[in-house]
Amino acid sequence: MNEFIELIQNHRSIRHFEDRPLTDEQIRAIVESAQSAATSSFVQAYTIIGVKDKAKKKKLAQLSGNEYVENNGHLLIFCADLHRHELIAEMENVDIYPALETTESFMVAIIDAALAAQNAALAAESLGLGICYIGGLRNNLEEVSKILHIPSLVVPVFAMTIGYPLNQSSKKPRLPFEHIYHEDEYQSDSSLLKKQLEDYNKIIQQYYKERTNGKRDDTWTSQMAAKFKVPTRTYMKDFVTKQGFNKK
Amino acid sequence: MNEFIELIQNHRSIRHFEDRPLTDEQIRAIVESAQSAATSSFVQAYTIIGVKDKAKKKKLAQLSGNEYVENNGHLLIFCADLHRHELIAEMENVDIYPALETTESFMVAIIDAALAAQNAALAAESLGLGICYIGGLRNNLEEVSKILHIPSLVVPVFAMTIGYPLNQSSKKPRLPFEHIYHEDEYQSDSSLLKKQLEDYNKIIQQYYKERTNGKRDDTWTSQMAAKFKVPTRTYMKDFVTKQGFNKK
Repeated sequence: MNEFIELIQNHRSIRHFEDRPLTDEQIRAIVESAQSAATSSFVQAYTIIGVKDKAKKKKLAQLSGNEYVENNGHLLIFCADLHRHELIAEMENVDIYPALETTESFMVAIIDAALAAQNAALAAESLGLGICYIGGLRNNLEEVSKILHIPSLVVPVFAMTIGYPLNQSSKKPRLPFEHIYHEDEYQSDSSLLKKQLEDYNKIIQQYYKERTNGKRDDTWTSQMAAKFKVPTRTYMKDFVTKQGFNKK
Repeated sequence: MNEFIELIQNHRSIRHFEDRPLTDEQIRAIVESAQSAATSSFVQAYTIIGVKDKAKKKKLAQLSGNEYVENNGHLLIFCADLHRHELIAEMENVDIYPALETTESFMVAIIDAALAAQNAALAAESLGLGICYIGGLRNNLEEVSKILHIPSLVVPVFAMTIGYPLNQSSKKPRLPFEHIYHEDEYQSDSSLLKKQLEDYNKIIQQYYKERTNGKRDDTWTSQMAAKFKVPTRTYMKDFVTKQGFNKK
């Protein structure tokens, strides 16, 4: 174990920040770190929008159902982006829409945005800053897109709040190593997988009990069952298709 | 700039490795780093398959069109995975298929897998190892899935080769900072974006000229136009739908 792996494994989401903006130098170091991530076939299929405007942050916070989106040192919006490839089609005089519209291209753009974002997260954490991914941005991408002037072939995939941590949170135990990591093929023994989930439930119950003085003791599987009981963001398929992605 | 950011920004793909397998301790450090990444609503929607079996690696290399998949210190397959949530549905006796099948859930699983992968990449690099993402794994996911016994609601999204670098490669210049990073809203001035792409083309031409003693001088936009001229992996929409993802 080295100190870099310690930093990686010490990650926890930070939700409350000092009222202290990041410097342009910090933002540049974080974004250039994002840009250093691998990118599928060198496609660089993402854009990062940094939001400083307070009124916009407030609106995005309302749409995300998340006050942290308003109060932080900086707010980044990571977008899956093949819009620049539309411009390239004009520059190079080729028709590339049939390729941009595939589910494969949609996956490439999402993966590129996520790889870049994780580099940004770690760069920020290495500077002593805290971060939180905000999937709530996807609650209402129609409105988000209006506020951010999002063009065709761009989908905002999540936000990231960054700032000076006001407090530390504890690290949530992850699924057991053996449950996530399979050797040579997918572990097909469902009873073993369920047994691992039951063991993990006990760890998660203990974690909540300790954090809440016994007030909360839900299991992971019950959380997941509750989360997926009702489909959410069911407009997504229509939205991404309208943007020009995932069509065929 | 600190040494973490230097490591992040020093990334380059490594394609040739010593014939020297990673230790189980190294693999564990890398996978546990992957597991420490943020995960959407704590869903942990990914699985990592580590392939040691030589015959399987050879077959995966053929399918990916990529010899590096066979010759490396270790091979990881990152999968978007909501299969364990199918098991949870059984354990908790709830119907969660309608939620698992949404495009939103598909995006969540891809993002989770990618965030975990980038942590794995950096953990490996911090150990002096090199890595390369292999999108070529998606050339033929039907066959890949047979070899790896992939169940429903799992999609292998890419592979990662890891190992002791045989040689260093040079770092490819990325798109200009100003082209990737927009402030407060998406940069809607297409002529400015195109101008930035033209400037970047000169940088990329120079990069290839220097690397190939003048033999190669293609631009980035011509590369991208060539790449997207013909749609690839057009089976993807059917495949992911068959796996139970991205249905509505």
